[in-house]
Amino acid sequence: MVNFTRALPFAVLTLFIQNKNQKNAKYMSREKVFLPILLGTNRKGRESETVAKWLFGKMSERKDIETKFFDVRDFDLPPDDYGTEIGKDFPEWRDAIVRADGLVVIVPEYNHGYPGSLKSVLDLLLKEYIHKAVGLVGVSAGPWGGTRVVEACVPMVRELGLAVTFTDLNFPTVKDKFDENGKLLDEAYNKRAADFLDELIWMSSTLRWGRANLPSKHNH
Amino acid sequence: MVNFTRALPFAVLTLFIQNKNQKNAKYMSREKVFLPILLGTNRKGRESETVAKWLFGKMSERKDIETKFFDVRDFDLPPDDYGTEIGKDFPEWRDAIVRADGLVVIVPEYNHGYPGSLKSVLDLLLKEYIHKAVGLVGVSAGPWGGTRVVEACVPMVRELGLAVTFTDLNFPTVKDKFDENGKLLDEAYNKRAADFLDELIWMSSTLRWGRANLPSKHNH
Amino acid sequence: MVNFTRALPFAVLTLFIQNKNQKNAKYMSREKVFLPILLGTNRKGRESETVAKWLFGKMSERKDIETKFFDVRDFDLPPDDYGTEIGKDFPEWRDAIVRADGLVVIVPEYNHGYPGSLKSVLDLLLKEYIHKAVGLVGVSAGPWGGTRVVEACVPMVRELGLAVTFTDLNFPTVKDKFDENGKLLDEAYNKRAADFLDELIWMSSTLRWGRANLPSKHNH
Amino acid sequence: MVNFTRALPFAVLTLFIQNKNQKNAKYMSREKVFLPILLGTNRKGRESETVAKWLFGKMSERKDIETKFFDVRDFDLPPDDYGTEIGKDFPEWRDAIVRADGLVVIVPEYNHGYPGSLKSVLDLLLKEYIHKAVGLVGVSAGPWGGTRVVEACVPMVRELGLAVTFTDLNFPTVKDKFDENGKLLDEAYNKRAADFLDELIWMSSTLRWGRANLPSKHNH
Repeated sequence: MVNFTRALPFAVLTLFIQNKNQKNAKYMSREKVFLPILLGTNRKGRESETVAKWLFGKMSERKDIETKFFDVRDFDLPPDDYGTEIGKDFPEWRDAIVRADGLVVIVPEYNHGYPGSLKSVLDLLLKEYIHKAVGLVGVSAGPWGGTRVVEACVPMVRELGLAVTFTDLNFPTVKDKFDENGKLLDEAYNKRAADFLDELIWMSSTLRWGRANLPSKHNH
Repeated sequence: MVNFTRALPFAVLTLFIQNKNQKNAKYMSREKVFLPILLGTNRKGRESETVAKWLFGKMSERKDIETKFFDVRDFDLPPDDYGTEIGKDFPEWRDAIVRADGLVVIVPEYNHGYPGSLKSVLDLLLKEYIHKAVGLVGVSAGPWGGTRVVEACVPMVRELGLAVTFTDLNFPTVKDKFDENGKLLDEAYNKRAADFLDELIWMSSTLRWGRANLPSKHNH
Repeated sequence: MVNFTRALPFAVLTLFIQNKNQKNAKYMSREKVFLPILLGTNRKGRESETVAKWLFGKMSERKDIETKFFDVRDFDLPPDDYGTEIGKDFPEWRDAIVRADGLVVIVPEYNHGYPGSLKSVLDLLLKEYIHKAVGLVGVSAGPWGGTRVVEACVPMVRELGLAVTFTDLNFPTVKDKFDENGKLLDEAYNKRAADFLDELIWMSSTLRWGRANLPSKHNH
Repeated sequence: MVNFTRALPFAVLTLFIQNKNQKNAKYMSREKVFLPILLGTNRKGRESETVAKWLFGKMSERKDIETKFFDVRDFDLPPDDYGTEIGKDFPEWRDAIVRADGLVVIVPEYNHGYPGSLKSVLDLLLKEYIHKAVGLVGVSAGPWGGTRVVEACVPMVRELGLAVTFTDLNFPTVKDKFDENGKLLDEAYNKRAADFLDELIWMSSTLRWGRANLPSKHNH
């Protein structure tokens, strides 16, 4: 039978420790996820910029997201080198991905594939992406909403070690979705973006817990 | 100041509940993950069966995995219907996926794609897969180890809601890897299988935590 | 100087042969191409059937196409075997593909991939497809018109040796495109189907010329 | 009955014309195909350069191929624009593709996808590619021979209007295939390259005939 007199200090101590753990557990699930957003084209007149800025606004408003805007146009990529060997030359990007819980990529569809400029930026890093999440936003001038480039991205981001959400955001005939000031014209996208972000947060938070709590030789 | 006399029963109760939670938490991370394995071809003379049985043996030996063997050949699929509408006619499969934390799929490469029989089985269910993990095992008679069918599977299993690990297991020239009794001839596969399973367990356990602890409209 | 008296019989013979060749050459480019059409799903209530029958009607009306209707539901596939080994059990299909210049496939999108029943039928043959053309018709209940399954089919039909046209036909929200009697509701599809078939005829005729005139170890 | 006296001049004329056609027909099938080769990466230390130069040598030796070497590293791509709008700034590339019958692309596998630099170059043009052929050469440091990037390229080059051959050339563990002077160490690649080029020539010649002889709104 338990001797409560002797057990009490231990019980209180245990209680204290467990409360702390409990709080940490709660804190973690409430803490903001850090989700950088990457605008994936450097084409002049790119409509994807409007999408990216609008979504960046949405993300910035949310209390559960911390974000930071990246534009592939700002990466001064050398003509004579490529890949992880030059990743160190882009410390702001690397540091963001190191700290990130997930990533949002705005990707227009060029010939059913991803823009070269986007791939060049993604290929700068590798282990930094592992066990983090990514959400894909397809953009197209035509009716299919970038669905094909999203399919093209899925095996590639997987190889980067990213877990891609299964709920994309698609912008067909993107010119019709915003006015000249970048104001959204189709209100349905507010709900769609919220759902897209909710799922990305779920995956990002889940993987963050995994990275923190479950050993893996792939964690960094 | 705390009145221990009055606080004691509450403290003990809390302690009990928290211990239970703690145990559950610990138990959860230590609990076996349930990973059914699916042999993905019904072709006569299929070499994939040898791979599947060998890997099933490996999984069965491990203390951190509970598994169950499924063979697409055992699914009596109707010639005149298809998909989730008939999923209820395969309750053993459905119940396994409902309870599963992840899935292992053995997939031979037929014309760079997946066998029809495998796709017919996977398409029987949908929401049951969501927020669970999958690991892909590519098998081929030739030198490329089923890498192409793995790429073909990745966007498809994603749409099922499965999170695919980024570390596949590949069996090129599969005839040379086992003797006629199914005994492994290439010892390197012991380490490869262990690594493959470790990562699948990591992802399965991580997602299980997410399903249990983080709200999502996609969880079931 | 040419001795016409002696040369004449030879000249006439040559002329005869060349005229025959010439006629064959002309005939060939005018001759109907044989383009079987394959309805690629056996799901009950399949909307793809309406699409397939409508397109079959369009093809049957054209003077430059000979066609024949195949339905994956009519293939009595065994539960315990798969692939080219059982191709001989489907002689009508095999004979059609042997004689075909190209193929039309109606493919609904199931989880971003092709139906298992379609793949099982396509995998029955192999060398019979080589250096022939294929046109893909994507069908979906949702807004994206089967674009994703088309992307999934492209590397697979290529491995079969088929040259896929780059101009697909896509049916999004297919329920709205036809009335309950299978009558087309959206007239734009008449022009789209004509363009789709024109390109498939171009590719089929071009490859037929190549098979007849240019040696290749892959020709059959 | 034919009056040979009157028919003779016509017969001879016809014979002459037909002989000319015949010769043209023969000439065409014997005429060299023009197949530019594109080295698809600008990474320092790229092994793909060795492969490209070796294959360029092979192509240059053949009497049925005219070729020209392009290197993505030589394309001075702007950081702030992309795509067909700037295609005119690369006239040597554009003129080559306008005149080409087909294309050889040397593509290393970076994260299961194509190098950004390769995609940026391919996206410079569009209609110039239509109804021409392409052959893909996969290169990888690891065992899978670039098979995955080849699969990734297939839907993309199709959208460019290129017809991809179904017989790739794959270089796994590429470092072992050549000595430090670029001399081939594995003789099997001589036969493989010959087969690869034979098929590309077949497809290029066949499509050239189609472009010349069969009307299409897509021909240029």
